[in-house]
This record gives sequence, C-alpha cells and structure tokens, in this order.
Amino acid sequence: MSIFDKFDHLRQTYDSLGDRAHNPFSVSFDRIESATEGVLGGRRVILLGTNNYLGLTFDQHGIDEAVRAVQTLGTGTTGSRVANGSYAGHGALERDLAAFFGRRHCMVFSTGYQANLGMLSTIVGRGDHLILDSDSHASIYDGARLGHAEVIRFRHSDPDDLYKRLRRLKDVPGSKLIVAEGIYSMLGDVAPLREIAAVKREMGAYLMVDEAHSMGVLGEHGRGLAEAAGVEADVDFIVGTFSKSLGSVGGFCVADLDGFDILRVACRPYMFTASLPPSIIASTRSALQRLDRDKGLRTQLMANATQLHGGLRALGLEVGPHISPVVSVALDEPEVAVRFWNALVEGGVYLNLALPPATPSSRPLLRASVSAAHSPRQIQKAVDLFGEIGRELGILPAEPFVELPRIAVGAV
Amino acid sequence: MSIFDKFDHLRQTYDSLGDRAHNPFSVSFDRIESATEGVLGGRRVILLGTNNYLGLTFDQHGIDEAVRAVQTLGTGTTGSRVANGSYAGHGALERDLAAFFGRRHCMVFSTGYQANLGMLSTIVGRGDHLILDSDSHASIYDGARLGHAEVIRFRHSDPDDLYKRLRRLKDVPGSKLIVAEGIYSMLGDVAPLREIAAVKREMGAYLMVDEAHSMGVLGEHGRGLAEAAGVEADVDFIVGTFSKSLGSVGGFCVADLDGFDILRVACRPYMFTASLPPSIIASTRSALQRLDRDKGLRTQLMANATQLHGGLRALGLEVGPHISPVVSVALDEPEVAVRFWNALVEGGVYLNLALPPATPSSRPLLRASVSAAHSPRQIQKAVDLFGEIGRELGILPAEPFVELPRIAVGAV
Repeated sequence: MSIFDKFDHLRQTYDSLGDRAHNPFSVSFDRIESATEGVLGGRRVILLGTNNYLGLTFDQHGIDEAVRAVQTLGTGTTGSRVANGSYAGHGALERDLAAFFGRRHCMVFSTGYQANLGMLSTIVGRGDHLILDSDSHASIYDGARLGHAEVIRFRHSDPDDLYKRLRRLKDVPGSKLIVAEGIYSMLGDVAPLREIAAVKREMGAYLMVDEAHSMGVLGEHGRGLAEAAGVEADVDFIVGTFSKSLGSVGGFCVADLDGFDILRVACRPYMFTASLPPSIIASTRSALQRLDRDKGLRTQLMANATQLHGGLRALGLEVGPHISPVVSVALDEPEVAVRFWNALVEGGVYLNLALPPATPSSRPLLRASVSAAHSPRQIQKAVDLFGEIGRELGILPAEPFVELPRIAVGAV
Repeated sequence: MSIFDKFDHLRQTYDSLGDRAHNPFSVSFDRIESATEGVLGGRRVILLGTNNYLGLTFDQHGIDEAVRAVQTLGTGTTGSRVANGSYAGHGALERDLAAFFGRRHCMVFSTGYQANLGMLSTIVGRGDHLILDSDSHASIYDGARLGHAEVIRFRHSDPDDLYKRLRRLKDVPGSKLIVAEGIYSMLGDVAPLREIAAVKREMGAYLMVDEAHSMGVLGEHGRGLAEAAGVEADVDFIVGTFSKSLGSVGGFCVADLDGFDILRVACRPYMFTASLPPSIIASTRSALQRLDRDKGLRTQLMANATQLHGGLRALGLEVGPHISPVVSVALDEPEVAVRFWNALVEGGVYLNLALPPATPSSRPLLRASVSAAHSPRQIQKAVDLFGEIGRELGILPAEPFVELPRIAVGAV
C-alpha cells in the first residue's frame, strides 16, 4: 500500500504514451533560441505550442527593463504585499493595467492561476451563486471549489442554457456571478459574449470574463473579447494573465466596482503568497506598453492564425469553429494522436497534445498556438508537415483534400 | 446591495487602521536599496520585516545569472510545463534541490503557495486523512480545502494531541498524512519534530514538513528542521519556497517515495499554471549553491536572531519561545500595536504587524524577521527604538527592565 496507489490508473495511461521518442507531457527543451524556435532532443523545432501570442518574450525593451530591475532592486521581494509591503512597481503595474482597461481598480496576483483562484473563492461566498461555463479553465473550477458559493454550470457558450439556469435562481437571494472566457484554450473558440451580457443585464447578475487568451489578441486596442464585442460596460470583472501576450508570469483582475480594494485583505491567494519579483513586474509593464502601442502585432497575429487555420482546413483536417491564435486539430483515436504528435516533433514542429477526458467532446487534440513572431514560412512549413503526416497515417487522402491556392498573408 | 457587502465588517476594521501615517497592510516602498534598507514615505528604513533570511536578493552572482538567463532565454516561458514543455533550467533546478536534500524526486511549483496547495489537494484524496497542526499556514489550509481528504487538526506543536487523534483513526482505512512546519511564521517557534516523527512511526502515517522558514536557517547543511532534529528519514515530503532564503519566487516538494512523478499529471496547481521564467530559475539555482556552500550565512543569521531576541527580551518585551529569524513581540491591545508599529516606521524600522484573529492566542504581534545581511548595529538600532517607543507608550517601565550588558555577537 502506498499513498500513490490512487494514481495507478493514471500511471498506466501516462506510461503507455512513453513508448515513442517523446512523451508529450514531459517535453524538455534543450534550448530556446527565440520566440518561435527551440531545440528539442537535439532537433531544431518551430515553437508552435506556446502561448507567446505577441512574441514579446524576446522583446529587447522588455529584456532591458528586466535586467535593470534585477540589478537595482534584487532578485525578489521575499514577502507578501499585505504582510511585507509592496515595491513601487507593483502599484505602478496596477495603475498601468487599470488605465489600459479604463477601470478604476486593479489587483495583481503572483500567477494567473491564483488570480482566478483568488477572485472566485472570495468575491462570492456562502449564499451566493457561481454560474460557470462548463468548459471553464481548471483555475476557475479550483477557485469555485476553494470558495463557498453554490456552483452551477451552464452548457459551453450557450446563452439560452445560461438564461434558463439564472431564471431558476430569480427569487433566490445572494449575488450571482457568471464566468466566461474570451477565447477557450482547447479549441480556440470565442465566447458569445454579447448574448451572455444580455442575459446578465436581464437577470441582474455580475459578469466576470477571463481574457487570458484574448488580451492583446482581440479588440481594436487589444483589451480582449469584451472590447471586441462592445460589451465592456457589462463586464464587472476582467481577469487576465501575464504569461501569454505579456510574456512573463502573473495575473490580475480589473474592475470598476466600489469597494474592490477590500479584497487585498480578504483574498487568501493574494495575501498569503510572495509578490512578483521586480524583474517580472518590469518586463510586464514594458510588454503592456508595446501591446498598447503596436497594433501591427495583432494584425500579424491574426494573419498567422488565418493562414494556419485555413491551411489545415484546406488539407481536410477538422479545426475549431473560429479563427483565433489557438488552432486545434481534432482527431478520433488517442493512439493515432500520439503518433501524429511524435511525427510532428520529429519533423521539426512542436505543439501540444491534449487527450480525453480533458478535451471538449472527449476527442484528442493537436493544439497549435500561433505567435505574431512566426513568419508565414514557418506557418506554411507546419501546414505542409501536417499534410504529409496526415497522409502517412491514412487520416488524409493520398492527395490533398482540396487543391486550394496557398493563402497569401498579404491578402488577409 | 453590492457583491462586496459581505466585507463591510472587515472594511471597518481595515479603515480604522488608516488614521495614522501608514496603514500596516498597504505599505508601499518608494525604493529598495539593499537587502536591509529601503525608503518608505520619504524616510530611510531598516528592512526588518521581510523573509530575506540570507540576504541573497542582492547576491551579485544570483543577479548576474538572472541577467544572463533573461538575455538568452527571454522574459518568460508562456506556458505550463505539462502542456507547453519545460525549459532545461526547470529540470536542472529540480535535480539541484533533490541532490541538496538527498532525495530522489523533486517538483518545482510557480509559487510556494501553489506547492502546498498542490501537494495537499492531490496526494491525499477521498477516504484519506489529513492531520494538520492548528497553526498551519493559509496555503496548507487552502490545499486541504481544495482536496477531498478528511481534515483533522491537532493542537499546535502538541505531539500528545497528535497521537490521540491518530489513535482514533487506527483501524480506519485510507492514508494518513501529518503536516507540520519547521518554523512557524507568526512567533518563530520551532516544531517538536522529533516527537512528531516518533508518533508518525508508531502510527504508520506519512509526514510532510513545510520548511519555508527553516530551509537555509536550521540544520548543519541548512536543510531545515528535519536535518536539525535528525529525523530526515521519517519525513516523506519536504515542501519549501524560493521566496525566503533563496530570494526569488516559487516553491517545491522533494520526496523519496516511488511513484512521485505521477503528480506531474495529477496535481492541478502544478499542471494548470505557467512555469517559472528563466531568470527566476537561474537566480534560485545560484542562491541554492550559495546556501549550500556558505555556512557563514547561517552563523551570522543566528547571531543576529539571538541579538534581536535577547535584546527585546531584556527590555521586558514578550517574545516567542525560541530563538529563530522570526522574532515577534506580543502586545495586548490592537490599537496600541498599530501605534507602536507606526512609531517604529517613523523611527526608521520597518517590520510587520499581525492582528487578531489571525494570530496565535489572538494577540497583536509586531513581527520582525532578521537577515544574515543585517549588521549588529542595525539590530541594535531596532532594539533601542523598541525600548524608546515602549517607554513612550507606557508598555515598558521608564527605565529599562533589566540592565543587561549588550549581547556581543562574537560570543554567540
């Protein structure tokens, strides 16, 4: 008897993936060379499986600011902001984010996971109701479990189902908080936020949107789906992360509601954790400035997303319903997906594998994420490789499914 | 009606602290100048309220390594290790930590909070039993709540009470996991780990020790209380943090048990969070080498702790039962504690204020943490200031309580 016996079944599944050259869940890069290239098992690969949407991890200004911060302020703060005090940069980043989103309040968390965990476990409590999209990220579910609100799930991106569930709560006391994500990370699909906001208004609920994958990606100014859908006034809380478009680590929540700042002494995952080191704060502030200023990054990102999505669809592969930086190919057999994934790595393209039951519709996914830093040539190489392997594995017909002209990025 | 109404009572308490020059829970430093000095509200203060036990945040090698890492590998990884792959440094740091503790396995987490949250919510589950010290850190309680094990508390640092509670579970199936901390952060008291380990052996339980405040502090080699107490063989899991002795941010767990690595695909706070940026990994590895090599840091730290603890006790103030880098002065009235804290800041000494009900025995605490980087003169300045303010506030008699010679650090 061991304390780990409860994981025997999981171990069998995991070990069965390790027969091939690479285990998709224990990848370790030899080196990272740029925002789009690394070396894996001695082989140079295109990084098509990060969330480096704007490619800012190698932004020179961000690197310089991080260097300056670590040299002048040291490697870390060694304490929580509530117990041990904030550095000036923490407040400055919060003001930057509040200004960017046009909100009065902002709290920065040490990880994006802790931002969701903290907000959802704190702002609703006993007697309140949390109404979650059923495909919500693990950090949202974990926040719901850590807190004390009653948790209700609505069908993924289904405003009618949301409406039905809220109507049942009509005369029940307590606050109601709806949670949706801007872009869902598995299939890259975009939430029907306009419709969700309409339900929210009619039912008198609060609305939180997690823009982790949509900040810097959607909206004229990069503020995410709430901006793109024109419903920012209906969104009470925006949660986001620094570890995607902003290229570092951490998370935040912005809001306009009076009384928000009391969360600084109520929210345990904010209070009981060391604050972000000065270098992280510095590069995040720099990245936010670039995101705000450089709309060309978003144009290039969406051009790359369109090229990859279109290219894979033209091959006859099944991709997600929306064009976004997350482009997932759904397959049928997990075993084939593992072989496909290994062949992609062998061929020089690294992306993610997601296996059921953690995937929508319980199908295995080859999940790519594109970056503004990818060149059209890198994207095309990935599409070509998908085609080659798909034909080898008998998933695609021997000849390309439809003979489309290659998508010209300039035309997008 | 607002979603924040539930915090009205907390807000009243919080706002009542803000009448004076500084609110102890919203301190923001203008600048940080070294591991022991900063500027707060235009005033230069000794930093006596961080957890920078070895003063390594300004270690030149650590800073240089962080700079090199951000320049060659970028500002962040933009992904979780399970979904998006590890960088070489993540594995290297895990091997370093495993070697340092003489264990076979190590997992690195993005915060210390998430290390406890992840381990406690995962390794015990439904049908298992978690036996926690009643004064456990919030991250331990939150991990217990996030998981599904039955949670039982034993009286703080009371092996007899622990024994009694485990005996009641004698014939109950399921794994039993005892959790204790090396040094408790509120009073700086050290757990009776030898006795706890004896109970563990007799009752056939597992034992986890959180060495957050004791790594680099206790033990011949700085491995913490388990080493100092000579019971490393009885400790199944050691959890720790990078944001104290190691001067950065992050957390870890080391263990020897077969099957440990399955946690990489089972532990949600490990899987669903972005991994630590290269610069953080680099400075942490550097700090661990220094901690391992430079025993003089621990000697100096304990000399400083002895000087502060002895100096405050000699004044007639009530300090914790053990000499450790956390030196807390217990007062009776929260209002007096807030005034005392403000006067310390005004006088040039920054430390932490902890108010009931979050404190042991529900008394307000002025909590200092010393660093190896403090000079004996800085410590003496703090002691003198405590005496002055204590007399002004009528807590101490007009003349010093006992006329002891000043403690000579060289003699400790």
